[in-house]
Amino acid sequence: MSNQTDSREEALTSNSTGQDGGSTNVQEILSWDDATWILTSAFIIFTMQTGFGLLESGCVSLKNEVNIMMKNVIDIVFGGITYWLFGYGLTYGELYTNPFFAIGYFAVDADIDEMGPVFSKFLFQLSFATTATTIVSGAMAERCNFRAYCLFSLCNTIVYCVPAGWIWGSHGFLHKLGAIDIGGSGAVHLVGGSSAFVAAWMLGPRLGRYDHGREPLPMGSPTNALLGLFMLWWGWLAFSSGSVFGVSGHKWKFSARAAVTTINASFGGGVVGLIYSYIRKKGKFDILDLISAVLGSLVSVTGGCAIYRPWEAIVIGAIGGGLACFGIPFFDWLHIDDPVGATSVHGLSAFWGVLAIGLFADGETLLNLTNGRSGLFKGGDAYLLGVQALAAVSFSLWAGFITFLLLWIINKFIPIRMEAHEELLGADLVEHGIRRSGVGVSRALSALGSHPNFDIEAGSAIGTNPVHLKILK
Amino acid sequence: MSNQTDSREEALTSNSTGQDGGSTNVQEILSWDDATWILTSAFIIFTMQTGFGLLESGCVSLKNEVNIMMKNVIDIVFGGITYWLFGYGLTYGELYTNPFFAIGYFAVDADIDEMGPVFSKFLFQLSFATTATTIVSGAMAERCNFRAYCLFSLCNTIVYCVPAGWIWGSHGFLHKLGAIDIGGSGAVHLVGGSSAFVAAWMLGPRLGRYDHGREPLPMGSPTNALLGLFMLWWGWLAFSSGSVFGVSGHKWKFSARAAVTTINASFGGGVVGLIYSYIRKKGKFDILDLISAVLGSLVSVTGGCAIYRPWEAIVIGAIGGGLACFGIPFFDWLHIDDPVGATSVHGLSAFWGVLAIGLFADGETLLNLTNGRSGLFKGGDAYLLGVQALAAVSFSLWAGFITFLLLWIINKFIPIRMEAHEELLGADLVEHGIRRSGVGVSRALSALGSHPNFDIEAGSAIGTNPVHLKILK
Amino acid sequence: MSNQTDSREEALTSNSTGQDGGSTNVQEILSWDDATWILTSAFIIFTMQTGFGLLESGCVSLKNEVNIMMKNVIDIVFGGITYWLFGYGLTYGELYTNPFFAIGYFAVDADIDEMGPVFSKFLFQLSFATTATTIVSGAMAERCNFRAYCLFSLCNTIVYCVPAGWIWGSHGFLHKLGAIDIGGSGAVHLVGGSSAFVAAWMLGPRLGRYDHGREPLPMGSPTNALLGLFMLWWGWLAFSSGSVFGVSGHKWKFSARAAVTTINASFGGGVVGLIYSYIRKKGKFDILDLISAVLGSLVSVTGGCAIYRPWEAIVIGAIGGGLACFGIPFFDWLHIDDPVGATSVHGLSAFWGVLAIGLFADGETLLNLTNGRSGLFKGGDAYLLGVQALAAVSFSLWAGFITFLLLWIINKFIPIRMEAHEELLGADLVEHGIRRSGVGVSRALSALGSHPNFDIEAGSAIGTNPVHLKILK
Repeated sequence: MSNQTDSREEALTSNSTGQDGGSTNVQEILSWDDATWILTSAFIIFTMQTGFGLLESGCVSLKNEVNIMMKNVIDIVFGGITYWLFGYGLTYGELYTNPFFAIGYFAVDADIDEMGPVFSKFLFQLSFATTATTIVSGAMAERCNFRAYCLFSLCNTIVYCVPAGWIWGSHGFLHKLGAIDIGGSGAVHLVGGSSAFVAAWMLGPRLGRYDHGREPLPMGSPTNALLGLFMLWWGWLAFSSGSVFGVSGHKWKFSARAAVTTINASFGGGVVGLIYSYIRKKGKFDILDLISAVLGSLVSVTGGCAIYRPWEAIVIGAIGGGLACFGIPFFDWLHIDDPVGATSVHGLSAFWGVLAIGLFADGETLLNLTNGRSGLFKGGDAYLLGVQALAAVSFSLWAGFITFLLLWIINKFIPIRMEAHEELLGADLVEHGIRRSGVGVSRALSALGSHPNFDIEAGSAIGTNPVHLKILK
Repeated sequence: MSNQTDSREEALTSNSTGQDGGSTNVQEILSWDDATWILTSAFIIFTMQTGFGLLESGCVSLKNEVNIMMKNVIDIVFGGITYWLFGYGLTYGELYTNPFFAIGYFAVDADIDEMGPVFSKFLFQLSFATTATTIVSGAMAERCNFRAYCLFSLCNTIVYCVPAGWIWGSHGFLHKLGAIDIGGSGAVHLVGGSSAFVAAWMLGPRLGRYDHGREPLPMGSPTNALLGLFMLWWGWLAFSSGSVFGVSGHKWKFSARAAVTTINASFGGGVVGLIYSYIRKKGKFDILDLISAVLGSLVSVTGGCAIYRPWEAIVIGAIGGGLACFGIPFFDWLHIDDPVGATSVHGLSAFWGVLAIGLFADGETLLNLTNGRSGLFKGGDAYLLGVQALAAVSFSLWAGFITFLLLWIINKFIPIRMEAHEELLGADLVEHGIRRSGVGVSRALSALGSHPNFDIEAGSAIGTNPVHLKILK
Repeated sequence: MSNQTDSREEALTSNSTGQDGGSTNVQEILSWDDATWILTSAFIIFTMQTGFGLLESGCVSLKNEVNIMMKNVIDIVFGGITYWLFGYGLTYGELYTNPFFAIGYFAVDADIDEMGPVFSKFLFQLSFATTATTIVSGAMAERCNFRAYCLFSLCNTIVYCVPAGWIWGSHGFLHKLGAIDIGGSGAVHLVGGSSAFVAAWMLGPRLGRYDHGREPLPMGSPTNALLGLFMLWWGWLAFSSGSVFGVSGHKWKFSARAAVTTINASFGGGVVGLIYSYIRKKGKFDILDLISAVLGSLVSVTGGCAIYRPWEAIVIGAIGGGLACFGIPFFDWLHIDDPVGATSVHGLSAFWGVLAIGLFADGETLLNLTNGRSGLFKGGDAYLLGVQALAAVSFSLWAGFITFLLLWIINKFIPIRMEAHEELLGADLVEHGIRRSGVGVSRALSALGSHPNFDIEAGSAIGTNPVHLKILK
């Protein structure tokens, strides 16, 4: 990774002197060809936010469908403004650095002769940062106070930006040790998944979640969830492929490989998801199983997307998808209630994805993405696997600990858990004043009915007569 | 703007002799690199139509959800064919020009050696034109006769194309005066918003709209509206960034800056929208407030996207978002019923956006986007602010007046307002024969019930018994 | 087509020696510029899967909405893995070839110095292959057994890849005869549409489909269907434009032309669809008519997108759209029940599209896309029309016959038709365990009620009382 990042910085901080010392004209061309690739990739990566919104709102109950979309909007607005203010500098700053964090680039700006590389890189990294902060929103769905979430979203940038600097900043200790994470299996997904785990644990399960067993609650809109899967899937191609950060020189070859391994991994994950679901559900196919398997496979391949062979990507994706599938009942068995399975999909699969680099990485000399090292299965020694394991553990511990700290502090000011009656009525009504007729109300009522602290006298015809609701708490 | 447009035309009408007089090979490369950028941007800009469709159908009541989507399809089909036939020529024609309009390029075509630049430019401008014509459909929602709308959509091209020529055509008087509008705050959004204002005023409010106060009616599908916001948001990056119209030479640096200022503006708008909503709704967060604020901020920044600094974009976006928020109750106070807030979001915010260029524009010499002038806050004199104000007033008056004229004439042939009973039943049923069970019908019924000319005997159990409806008119 | 494919292969198999023998630097630039175009196009083409999913799930009844989306996921997972394993090699393999098929490239992989062109081409072709296999899923909707469909999806790759080799492989007999199909009117859509016809015929109509006449059944979600139309529409621009397979040299000019003719064709189709619907529905506008007309026009133009003039594209699209519209009642008159109209839209319109090349093709010498031949209306003789007709007939017969064979064999192992009671309850419930309240159940019940083998005692208030369902079969 170190040389890739070096060449990233070369390409982006010096556009007048190119990397092969060619003529000025060609250098300029290199720069704008790479910028076209980087900016276009970023535009496509942002569409993954639509995918996350659809997936999460499709997975939760109808009474929280809009609220979770609003949280995604908040993630972009607050996550974006803080990333611009200090987040980018925590990862790539040069004012002060030590192996664990950097400072600089506050309120990112650039003069006219530097703005090309600086703004291209900032926009691309911003699209990564907003993705990382969005992952955790799903795990907190249906029971997290909206204002507390807003505060968390403001602070969440720090959770992502510091470990991103470890691996992608030239100052970072993992970078210096030679750890590799091209598309962010570790810095984006493992960090997001670990945050999700801690947040879901701290919030506790939704009211009545495990009253009738551990099977996932019905999805509010499986169609929307599948649409979200699709949008994430195609966006992921740009996410992985754009992570090579250019097309000039030999970069385009690795960009092309990254796209192929990414889609191939999803084939492996999809097959495993279908088999898993077929066995578990005795011949039926569960929507969430398949979604989790495909996303888990994409999470696991993205870290080493440019340095795998296509068949290896299928194997890595199959294992990643399998971990995502098995993780969901495992965390439910622990009564960690993660409504969209973010802990499994982004946590477990990402952990595997970071390790897989230590096993399958192709050493190559064109971009020197691996610093000359190879994975254990490719004739390398255990060093790379070792630093990848260190990276995985570091990411998990950091994200878990800081998330705990942030939520613990926020909880002192604004309780992170919604009031029980608010949770039962749903955040769409309580936080945004959205009334639904028919379906949604009847679900909310049946939820209320199943809770011992509430007594309901529903009108005889739902939707026509008013609903009488006594809160006995 | 004048030099930018000049360089646009240079780059696009002569691909054999480049702009710096370099070798033929490099010139060719310049051309196709720019074409890649322009075409890819256009592909992404078209996805904003999906966003508009989702936003508008999400904002209206369920009984008109499909109809408004159909109007968006009409906008593309009729708006597109008329743009091809004469619209493009009204903006960029060279057969006859005066400072106020141009003629030429009827039924756009090009020979094989000219087709590269001509078709690239046409497709890009077409994506702008269809956006401009779509803006007004939201303001006319839920009560405009579908056939009258089709006629309006056929003529609407003229509303956009003439002022686009003022600012972007080499013949235009605003262009010659040095007015600037890089991404179309004025020519696209202010024109669309002014049309929206006049159309909403001429149609009058929906039946019963202000019977129970001025608070917006419930959205049919807040989830879809938020999805629409997302799709517009990401598409806007290509809209602004693609407006620099290339990546070759120094253009890529401004393309990158345009993308960053665009997303930064939305952060400013989003924060203002959250604060506004929190205060207005006493601690709740309104969906439409946040949507309007983010879109308003994007509208206001796009005109000068490539010539602002990132922090200025946040300020400009915050003001633009605030104007969009305050505009909605203001127009409702005037009983101008604009169901999706297009008048505020595209009108008020755009007016500010056109003026903001006169305040914040960075003078630069690389692309000479400002003809050497700077904004009032950047050491320039009041000249630029003056011509920007002239542009804003010209755009508003033209669009308002021509829209009035068109709708007034159309109304002589086909009444633009739906029949009252059709409006109450909803355009989905009346125009497209779509029957909805449950929710939609009950809403249509309650709307009927609130209207003095109608009497309803609804069956005791909605959805199972037939609904008896007597129209007493 | 032959020379285009040749230049495709040149550009993509030799990146060190370019096509004009220029300097090494420029050759490298050519390669990565083309790769940027090809990869970005592929990323956008994949979003058409989201479009297909939305369109198909919007067209079917709510009780099958999720199931059809799941089939789209299966198409990508199984269609993708088989395309990687053997499909790509059936089209482009070089191990063994004869004019009717090729073998090679099993489990596509490439060494580091070849991977750029191989992986770029594979990803692009994969995006085509998954599109082709998805087309047929709509025609089989609402009554095809899910496990049988999975098997079919695994084998479907062979249906597409063999004829794709006829026209695009250097070994193919149609390629050698000089047949042209730039964007896949024939190899993608006519093949898909012919498969759809046979599959719909073999499955038979849905239960009760023609009990009350031949008018299409109500769409489950017209809004989603229109959203799907939008996503397909914009994706199609990249589909056609990307098919020129590069931007270097003169290619960018044809890429630009392909985008313009594609969007122009849709204007022609849209106008025809509106007129058709207005007449047929006596002043109303039918959603499915307009969707079919627009998609039919896109299908018909894509085969010759780069070699038409813009006004010709409008004519070709108008005829293609008209055929799609008239085809739907025609196939319903034959009691071929195709719930989404895939047979008309992808079959009839594509047949016309393949022939239209023989009439309208511009001979040109820059890329020599037509081998120096011109269409009948452009001064050419009847040869080109003749080979295009041969191509159209060959595609139709192959796809029809192999689909018949595959489904006939699969039916021996797993009956392809769902059990009657499963079909009536809907695949969402039966295959995926999804329960819907309100609307969906009442529709399922009324469907059950209209079937002679079933007797229903519905509770007095749907949604509150349990539904008693006796299956008397």
